[in-house]
Amino acid sequence: MIALGIHGGCGVMARTELSDAQWAAARADLIEALRAGWRVLQTGGSAVAAVEAAVVVMEESPHFNAGYGAALNIDGVAALDASIMDGASLGAGAVSAVSRARNPVKLARALMEGKGTVMLTGPAADAYAEAHGLEVVAPSFFVTDRQRQALVRMKHLERTGTPATEGEKHGTVGAVALDRDGHLAAATSTGGYTNKPAGRVGDTPIIGAGTYARDGTCAVSGTGAGEYFIRHVVGHEIASRMAYLGEDLATAAHKVVMEDLHRHGIGAGIVAIDGQGRLVVPYNTDGMYRGWVTTEGVVHVATHDKVFVVETL
Amino acid sequence: MIALGIHGGCGVMARTELSDAQWAAARADLIEALRAGWRVLQTGGSAVAAVEAAVVVMEESPHFNAGYGAALNIDGVAALDASIMDGASLGAGAVSAVSRARNPVKLARALMEGKGTVMLTGPAADAYAEAHGLEVVAPSFFVTDRQRQALVRMKHLERTGTPATEGEKHGTVGAVALDRDGHLAAATSTGGYTNKPAGRVGDTPIIGAGTYARDGTCAVSGTGAGEYFIRHVVGHEIASRMAYLGEDLATAAHKVVMEDLHRHGIGAGIVAIDGQGRLVVPYNTDGMYRGWVTTEGVVHVATHDKVFVVETL
Repeated sequence: MIALGIHGGCGVMARTELSDAQWAAARADLIEALRAGWRVLQTGGSAVAAVEAAVVVMEESPHFNAGYGAALNIDGVAALDASIMDGASLGAGAVSAVSRARNPVKLARALMEGKGTVMLTGPAADAYAEAHGLEVVAPSFFVTDRQRQALVRMKHLERTGTPATEGEKHGTVGAVALDRDGHLAAATSTGGYTNKPAGRVGDTPIIGAGTYARDGTCAVSGTGAGEYFIRHVVGHEIASRMAYLGEDLATAAHKVVMEDLHRHGIGAGIVAIDGQGRLVVPYNTDGMYRGWVTTEGVVHVATHDKVFVVETL
Repeated sequence: MIALGIHGGCGVMARTELSDAQWAAARADLIEALRAGWRVLQTGGSAVAAVEAAVVVMEESPHFNAGYGAALNIDGVAALDASIMDGASLGAGAVSAVSRARNPVKLARALMEGKGTVMLTGPAADAYAEAHGLEVVAPSFFVTDRQRQALVRMKHLERTGTPATEGEKHGTVGAVALDRDGHLAAATSTGGYTNKPAGRVGDTPIIGAGTYARDGTCAVSGTGAGEYFIRHVVGHEIASRMAYLGEDLATAAHKVVMEDLHRHGIGAGIVAIDGQGRLVVPYNTDGMYRGWVTTEGVVHVATHDKVFVVETL
């Protein structure tokens, strides 16, 4: 039994923000990410390899705030965070403030496999990527016209005192999976948010907060106001409620996302999976890029209420 | 009712490593840290202010691996991590890879009070300190002869293939407190370990792992192999066991430190406090610098088995 779920960020996501063709293009990339992860799982690969493969596709897509096309910080550069966790071993890897590693999730995976340091930050993280044969690029590689314009717009809003909408502020990609051997894994990658302070680290590279996986409980990847995910230790909180209160995944996830986080009035969403391959994608915003493949192989993708049932893999 | 506990790191700490006078000097600084935190609590100050005050004294002491006298990384510089958490509001602040802010715990506190970004990394964190009126120093300020020699010794051991002992590798300082209003707080600060990779971030700035506080459960500050504290989300795990399994603090802390972490064969210790001011200081290594003031005001300090009852404040 295998299963896979992904998200590409949540927020206000006004339907008029993108054309129909653009929404469809984003959904197409979600489908590609699901296919990439599913291919790994179906050929007997690990949940860790599957979530990495799915996240890489979203990092490479201009439609999501991670890797290429990431939101730009106050200095106009992409400062990328990512992490990955193996539910079988509790192995983990995490990076923050990366600016040259093309695929931060691959770098997180390399750290995890290195079995020493779990977390690296800044230029040393990029150097680790280079030393371990991962592709590094010039920082300008990540910068798209769309994100450059978003930064200009955000700085303008800031000057005029207009509060930014959530749709403009959030975005993150992530994946969770159950593999043939019954193991869980989670991975998350992000550029943070447009115009974020230099050096700001959100929940994405924080094991226990934005990313968490433990066999016997669940795997979780989050998107939303990262500061609250950190303070609520969201991933580990959901796992703890399952392990110690005996709640099922849907109940625990609902409690944390729709009650604990929603109470602060902040936008949040997660994708999570349990050991039986049950997937949940709760979010308290207007929309969330998301997709999943059920244990029967049926592909679903969605951005708002409407769920598209695409194909059976 | 008020109470306060601190640690100054755990490890092998061979009794022959320091002279009797040096052990006594380290204990004296632990006592100073306790007095500083106690003064805050006794005058009606918050648990947050008390843990900050206690940690600042240990950051200023050459005897502990934090602030002045911190362990040096592979490049011979101090790269400092710290965090603080308010159990009343779940507010938190954290910094990693700081090299100029004289007291990283003060910087973490400033971030928490800023109520925006929770975590900053690298030079931008130091810049935040400067912009918020905190003292910044030249990176060379932190470097002591003792730590320079420790780095030379460690690089030599590395070249000769001799595995380093834990006593040489670990060290961190931290504090937990209960204030008059019944609120809990925790803070932690560290240089990591001697010869650590550039950019390596341990559990100290990871909310939920090395530092955690939540009213109604506990406040926790950890010391030991940080990578395992991250993977086990140690602080939040202890709080979750208390909240959801109904375990008392001693039982939950013992389970995590003496079973979960000890199983990996790694050195670990914590100081933790519950809402009734009960303090625990479990560690699975030969020694741990530690001290506490009971709700009756009795000061205790210790490095190994023997506990010195010092005075009543």
